[in-house]
Amino acid sequence: MSQTVSQLAERVGGQVRGDGSVEIHGGASAENGKPGEISFVQTAEFLKTALAARASCLIVHPSLDTGSVPAIVVDDPKLAFARVLRALHPRPAPAEGVHASAVVEPSATLGRGVHVGAQAYIGEDARCADGVVIGAGTVVERGACIGRDSYLHSRVVVGADCVLGERVELHSGVVVGSDGFGYVTHAGGQEKFPQLGTVQIGDDVEVGANTTIDRGALDPTRIGNGTKIDNLVQIAHNVQIGEHCLICAQSGLAGSAVIGDRVMILGQCAVGDHTILEDGVILTARTAALPHKTHAGGVYFGAPARPIKEGMRQMAAVTRLPDALRKLTRLEREVRARRDPD
Amino acid sequence: MSQTVSQLAERVGGQVRGDGSVEIHGGASAENGKPGEISFVQTAEFLKTALAARASCLIVHPSLDTGSVPAIVVDDPKLAFARVLRALHPRPAPAEGVHASAVVEPSATLGRGVHVGAQAYIGEDARCADGVVIGAGTVVERGACIGRDSYLHSRVVVGADCVLGERVELHSGVVVGSDGFGYVTHAGGQEKFPQLGTVQIGDDVEVGANTTIDRGALDPTRIGNGTKIDNLVQIAHNVQIGEHCLICAQSGLAGSAVIGDRVMILGQCAVGDHTILEDGVILTARTAALPHKTHAGGVYFGAPARPIKEGMRQMAAVTRLPDALRKLTRLEREVRARRDPD
Amino acid sequence: MSQTVSQLAERVGGQVRGDGSVEIHGGASAENGKPGEISFVQTAEFLKTALAARASCLIVHPSLDTGSVPAIVVDDPKLAFARVLRALHPRPAPAEGVHASAVVEPSATLGRGVHVGAQAYIGEDARCADGVVIGAGTVVERGACIGRDSYLHSRVVVGADCVLGERVELHSGVVVGSDGFGYVTHAGGQEKFPQLGTVQIGDDVEVGANTTIDRGALDPTRIGNGTKIDNLVQIAHNVQIGEHCLICAQSGLAGSAVIGDRVMILGQCAVGDHTILEDGVILTARTAALPHKTHAGGVYFGAPARPIKEGMRQMAAVTRLPDALRKLTRLEREVRARRDPD
Repeated sequence: MSQTVSQLAERVGGQVRGDGSVEIHGGASAENGKPGEISFVQTAEFLKTALAARASCLIVHPSLDTGSVPAIVVDDPKLAFARVLRALHPRPAPAEGVHASAVVEPSATLGRGVHVGAQAYIGEDARCADGVVIGAGTVVERGACIGRDSYLHSRVVVGADCVLGERVELHSGVVVGSDGFGYVTHAGGQEKFPQLGTVQIGDDVEVGANTTIDRGALDPTRIGNGTKIDNLVQIAHNVQIGEHCLICAQSGLAGSAVIGDRVMILGQCAVGDHTILEDGVILTARTAALPHKTHAGGVYFGAPARPIKEGMRQMAAVTRLPDALRKLTRLEREVRARRDPD
Repeated sequence: MSQTVSQLAERVGGQVRGDGSVEIHGGASAENGKPGEISFVQTAEFLKTALAARASCLIVHPSLDTGSVPAIVVDDPKLAFARVLRALHPRPAPAEGVHASAVVEPSATLGRGVHVGAQAYIGEDARCADGVVIGAGTVVERGACIGRDSYLHSRVVVGADCVLGERVELHSGVVVGSDGFGYVTHAGGQEKFPQLGTVQIGDDVEVGANTTIDRGALDPTRIGNGTKIDNLVQIAHNVQIGEHCLICAQSGLAGSAVIGDRVMILGQCAVGDHTILEDGVILTARTAALPHKTHAGGVYFGAPARPIKEGMRQMAAVTRLPDALRKLTRLEREVRARRDPD
Repeated sequence: MSQTVSQLAERVGGQVRGDGSVEIHGGASAENGKPGEISFVQTAEFLKTALAARASCLIVHPSLDTGSVPAIVVDDPKLAFARVLRALHPRPAPAEGVHASAVVEPSATLGRGVHVGAQAYIGEDARCADGVVIGAGTVVERGACIGRDSYLHSRVVVGADCVLGERVELHSGVVVGSDGFGYVTHAGGQEKFPQLGTVQIGDDVEVGANTTIDRGALDPTRIGNGTKIDNLVQIAHNVQIGEHCLICAQSGLAGSAVIGDRVMILGQCAVGDHTILEDGVILTARTAALPHKTHAGGVYFGAPARPIKEGMRQMAAVTRLPDALRKLTRLEREVRARRDPD
């Protein structure tokens, strides 16, 4: 899939500096570039490293000078590099067809260009729209619906009646549509509250390996367009997530949490049940947003979540605490000594 | 599965107010009820919302008045609603039989009414009792034993020789019987301590998606009757869990922890190795019960876990800490100024 | 697999005390030993319990006296016991061959003695070296390479082009080679940064159930020889882990973290992106090592991670904080009273 520097520049709307006819066959990190490869340099800090490596072209910000090395100049080098990578290393498109070992129930419907991998299972009345890829060992249960050009990797489960939008990508081990954790406690123990809702996922959503998304109890659990979820995340029943959110690994969203648009949740966070995170909220890593609480747009830190300045001030105060306690004891002794000057 | 209000009332031991002959075909949340549907109202707070929706019947506490809307009156509306939902929306019972693509080793034994789904595998000498459902792609390894009417969803693994009670439900991606994390450290590195125990799960246990339960090193890991476990929980080797416990998502129980009956562990908790939680302990979210420590019945909060009042007092104190440190500095200055009144 | 005490002693380089001809057929925990079984006693504390049980032989430290019970005397009884267990309870070796229900693509290559279990899938150009065991339902994607004598349990996924060393053990539900969580944020939302690297795992690595290991963005994610990883751990893209590390359950390592040799990370820890843990670092449970920070060898505690003494001092100070705040208020009142002695 080799392309010239000029071709790549045109694809990303960048300007060529130096020889545009150089052939590029692959992308590399700045420190590992080799002849025939292209790298990117986001900030001046990494320019020296990139020039010391031997890439045949660098994608750089207009403010950076690459000397004799051919360059593609753009305002956002990382974004341009991502697009160049996709052009140079397109994802292998599995061939249309159902593998001989896969099982597609007769009542299921497959669109054009659908690939169903080895050992996969498509249940009764399930639907895969045009261009869908179903990886090896993946299970699409009864009545589930997979939107156009979605890509389910190996060993995914999409539960009964769940609905995925277009261009959704589910990584291996994802479970969509497991029962929510709902019980009614009574004298004899726990009685299960039937989990009858579904999961509805928008377009361009990506979900990381072994993440779990429970179906709603009565109404659906919903994930909006463009939201990206990392590995080992827990999304409980009835959660509502807006558009273009980022949710990092090992975070957990408890039942009926409501997340706005462009919310960012870093790693190992907790969002309590019925908690509201309004548009643009950022939870820094390990933050715990308390149950039944509304958080306006802004950056939060700590457990419980506080506006980041306040959270940082508290953390700094705890660092100084052992010294402060000693100081307090000394001061107390001094005051007492003067009170009782025997 | 439509039923009359009177039929549903009889099923849950409730009293009918209004027209008992109304036909109900489904359940809905209080705010979304439509004609032909039934909802429940647990407290007066939600009555207005429920009446504003158009459900044909409400399940309510005797103290609530639903006006012209037919009602079923019971002491615990949520519990009654859960039972009504189960009656109106029975889980589809997969047909008896082994799917043509499933593999059942000749030495395995299947009871009456067993369903083995597509691409599933039942290993040598494994046993599935009457009424068991094995979901698509699920693996029951050699010698494992699945009790009567248990339901294993898609892509579950039950490891060799593990034993499940009756009416156990394992959600997709659950792994029962992986090796415990046991090594002996020596000069050359780590030497694995063989993990030879099994996992023994009681009756009416439910386990959430992608949760992992390790086999014991020598003796079994045990989970008691009626215990419910959420998604992405880690149960390490040799853990002993009592009856009717609730363990919420992303909590982790380290090796040889001992959990009593009716213990409740909220989300993202940690229970250290050899820790004891006695009957009735409640760990609030994110609490960390220290290793080798016994916790008597009661509510705990914090890391490390403290009785909740104490934990809350500490958290509140940390909130006030930045102010307190400023106050301390001021006070110190003042005392010093009086000591050295130059 | 019964052996005499003398045979077992020879195997572990220990000395026999008492009758070496006693036949041993299995291992048991100290408190549950029965005739014909062997147990071990690491410290004097457990000797009484072990002697009260009825094991036919005890493995003990030279300083312990087992009276009339035959003993094998070694410097490290637990290590010797682990080796004795392996001799008495060898893991069943699945027979060579490809199960009739498994699929091996024609371009894949299998070494001698390879077992491919039921419903497994080996993709194009994948390679399994001699002695590899592929469990039921496991997927080895295109171009992946599994080293000699590795053991993949049921329902594992090894992603395209990933490389495993020799004697690697992956437990059920493990996902190796899922895409890293990399996006470039721009006005229109998130653009995916292609994840083109692989995962390279050394020899003698063990990975616990449902753990996820992402492929690198450009260069590989790497795990060194002898490292052991527990269940539900997240290893993000580009992470570099050294040799003989131990990483406990539910810990998460963010992108590009660099972990040295013999590092120990206890349960539910967080390691930030680009964080460096040098050789011999120990993170105690729940510790959070901050992003872009280097941690020299030593024991750390807390969030953020601090040298353990400092972290413990802070935790103790927080415990005393509510009292200290009361004391501060009292002192302030007293000082003020003397300043304004009206």
